[in-house]
Amino acid sequence: MLEDVLAAADAAARPWGELPRTERAAALTAVADELDAAADELVPLAQKESHLPEARLRGELVRTTFQLRLFAEQVRAGFEVAEDAPDPDWPPGPRPALRRVHLPIGPVVVFAASNFPFAFSVAGGDTASALAAACPVIVKAHPGHPRLSDATGEVVHRALSRAGAPEGTFAVVHGDENGRSAVLDPRVEAVAFTGSVRGGRALFDLAVSRPKPIPFYGELGSINPVFVTEQAARSRGAEIAAGYVDSFTMGAGQFCTKPGLFVVPAGTGLGSLAAERVREKAAAPLLNERIGAGYRASLGGLVEHEEVRVLVEGADTPEGPAPTLLATTARALLDDGEPLLTECFGPASLVVEYASRDEALAVARALEGQLTGTVHGEDDDEIARPLLTELAARAGRVLWNGWPTGVAVTHAMHHGGPYPATTAPLHTSVGTAATARFLRPVAFQNVPEHLLPA
Amino acid sequence: MLEDVLAAADAAARPWGELPRTERAAALTAVADELDAAADELVPLAQKESHLPEARLRGELVRTTFQLRLFAEQVRAGFEVAEDAPDPDWPPGPRPALRRVHLPIGPVVVFAASNFPFAFSVAGGDTASALAAACPVIVKAHPGHPRLSDATGEVVHRALSRAGAPEGTFAVVHGDENGRSAVLDPRVEAVAFTGSVRGGRALFDLAVSRPKPIPFYGELGSINPVFVTEQAARSRGAEIAAGYVDSFTMGAGQFCTKPGLFVVPAGTGLGSLAAERVREKAAAPLLNERIGAGYRASLGGLVEHEEVRVLVEGADTPEGPAPTLLATTARALLDDGEPLLTECFGPASLVVEYASRDEALAVARALEGQLTGTVHGEDDDEIARPLLTELAARAGRVLWNGWPTGVAVTHAMHHGGPYPATTAPLHTSVGTAATARFLRPVAFQNVPEHLLPA
Repeated sequence: MLEDVLAAADAAARPWGELPRTERAAALTAVADELDAAADELVPLAQKESHLPEARLRGELVRTTFQLRLFAEQVRAGFEVAEDAPDPDWPPGPRPALRRVHLPIGPVVVFAASNFPFAFSVAGGDTASALAAACPVIVKAHPGHPRLSDATGEVVHRALSRAGAPEGTFAVVHGDENGRSAVLDPRVEAVAFTGSVRGGRALFDLAVSRPKPIPFYGELGSINPVFVTEQAARSRGAEIAAGYVDSFTMGAGQFCTKPGLFVVPAGTGLGSLAAERVREKAAAPLLNERIGAGYRASLGGLVEHEEVRVLVEGADTPEGPAPTLLATTARALLDDGEPLLTECFGPASLVVEYASRDEALAVARALEGQLTGTVHGEDDDEIARPLLTELAARAGRVLWNGWPTGVAVTHAMHHGGPYPATTAPLHTSVGTAATARFLRPVAFQNVPEHLLPA
Repeated sequence: MLEDVLAAADAAARPWGELPRTERAAALTAVADELDAAADELVPLAQKESHLPEARLRGELVRTTFQLRLFAEQVRAGFEVAEDAPDPDWPPGPRPALRRVHLPIGPVVVFAASNFPFAFSVAGGDTASALAAACPVIVKAHPGHPRLSDATGEVVHRALSRAGAPEGTFAVVHGDENGRSAVLDPRVEAVAFTGSVRGGRALFDLAVSRPKPIPFYGELGSINPVFVTEQAARSRGAEIAAGYVDSFTMGAGQFCTKPGLFVVPAGTGLGSLAAERVREKAAAPLLNERIGAGYRASLGGLVEHEEVRVLVEGADTPEGPAPTLLATTARALLDDGEPLLTECFGPASLVVEYASRDEALAVARALEGQLTGTVHGEDDDEIARPLLTELAARAGRVLWNGWPTGVAVTHAMHHGGPYPATTAPLHTSVGTAATARFLRPVAFQNVPEHLLPA
């Protein structure tokens, strides 16, 4: 079964790559249209399997189809072509005519995530960008929403077929063993993954262990620190605390950009203000039992730490866990950082109180690679620039007076970052730049126009 | 000692990155100027250690300093900045103001090659592009030219210091153990390497085995096939055969782009024409004993193959080996490809005679990743386009009626390719695009102009 899928993807690579750009763009648009048309079938399935609310899922589907259409536009516009005219006087020797184009890297395996059953799953950003780059895609479905994965897969497959994509351009497979086998298969040329550090690192290790190693674009883990300056805390502490709680409890805290660390000046009461708002938040179900078990384990690890105080203990209700708020000091974190800097995927976050600017900067310097880093401050804050600089050295996106949850699908977005945020710090998995992951540059030297590959 | 170098590079990363662009560009230009000024000191050292002729080395130094100045120009012009204006009506939700810039990835370890003691060594393309990207550089010198490496290193170091680069921006270290330790050091953020498949793969494996894996830009091996169509062979066979021999014997065959495979139509006499010219070529010394031993071993492996005929057996003279020309058939290669598709670094090449167009295309399809692939053909050749397509699917550069030796340092050059040509098929080690390997995108969201990092 997997063998058939791999053989079909391999066979589809050339004809899918040679389909005229306008037809490939039309195929992506067709996928978007058919997904929109199937919303009333797909959203209830997603609700049932992911326990996420309907409004959120409908919004996520809009984002997903918008994304497909944005990539279709990019395909229509064409990818960058660089050219050098011949120059016999080029200093170190005559320069030939060179034209550098981008060719599809080949079949791509996409590991779907559970927390965005549309936008980071079967028809999500990785799939859309790989198809836009003219690569066949094999999705390894997430076990958290198997029926939705198949239903989405059928819609995508049908739309692509009708639009003239060769058979084998797209398929969905299930099961960890199939996923691992696909990563090791010589016909696969790249892997995209969104998930945990443990699972992602294991697959990365496989991809680079192959006789022919291949690029592995893994988004693994991030705690997305938010720093609040003393000035900002004093001038609008309540507003910032409210924004923080809304952000970390959104989607039951199951966002890769959830602020897991709220680094605030001691003595400004931000922890108490946040705690008040956390108590108002309702319990919400988690995505699935695996996520639930992981959440309880990582939360347990934090709570047991002797320097951690529980500000709000979220009740474990039949509906799911209510949010939990913890607190510690910058001093404790600097003394014993690792256990306190572990991602806790779910509705919990850690307030870190700093006693001085130096302590705040030291916390920033203690961080590993992050998807995002945020500062809430005032325009004339002396600490703002050094803090932003430290965060930029460690994160793929740096925010000012905003919240990291919600990643705009645009041209200039960068959703990535140094390890463990990702395994490929130069690449983004969101926004039009995501196609670059699947395009291989080739320079044609003195090749006449009519002989260039399609 | 290595510890001091690593600590200094780590300390230099921030100030070197924050030096204004004009000053960084001036520092690169100063390096170029001082290297040019030191030519009469450096070239004789290079001659002595590499056994390459003076004219070639002077030309290579010109290329090296041209390259530094080209990167200086690129730094002056600035790297790409992408911007999104805020848009409250962006379909899937309001779009923030985003500005994506490129920041230096951090300290880079460069493994120098032996075959270009200037252009791919201490002050070569990897060093120049990493410095242009504002990364500190630690060069692991090649043992083939240790004194030249130190002398070049001193010139580079002095020029950078005088130009205001912080101490620690650049250093040279020696020894395999230092190289391995540097690759594993947590302060190092990327590695560039040019050398053998065996050595490169071992270092790649180290880089990806780290708790925090880092990008490894390795250029490992390539046999650079050249295909000749039947039409071209009939219309200008002698000219093509001569060009081929000149190309594969250039620099005693010690180019990573040396044509190691000459795939020609049977019965057109191209093998005999090439053999005649090979007999006219003089013996030349190899770079060093390690290269010599490797050459004899891989040549021995080819000669022993039962389907290989020796057209010209290059004598082993006190001056070095005279060039050797071997021949086989496409059939033999398709039946038992691997031993025949092994790179033989030095003055030898293999003529492969094909009996039909299908065989020629099958040879192209049997190839692993290559730096280059070449076709000599006529404009109305039916086989030209399918051949070019097969080569483009496997090589980083595709040439028409030219020779792969000689890689222009330009904007549109791509010197890379799928494994084993490189370990990073999306990147180039030659041309201005080489800086992208050391630049990490960061998106700033709603950050006011005056608070953006330097």
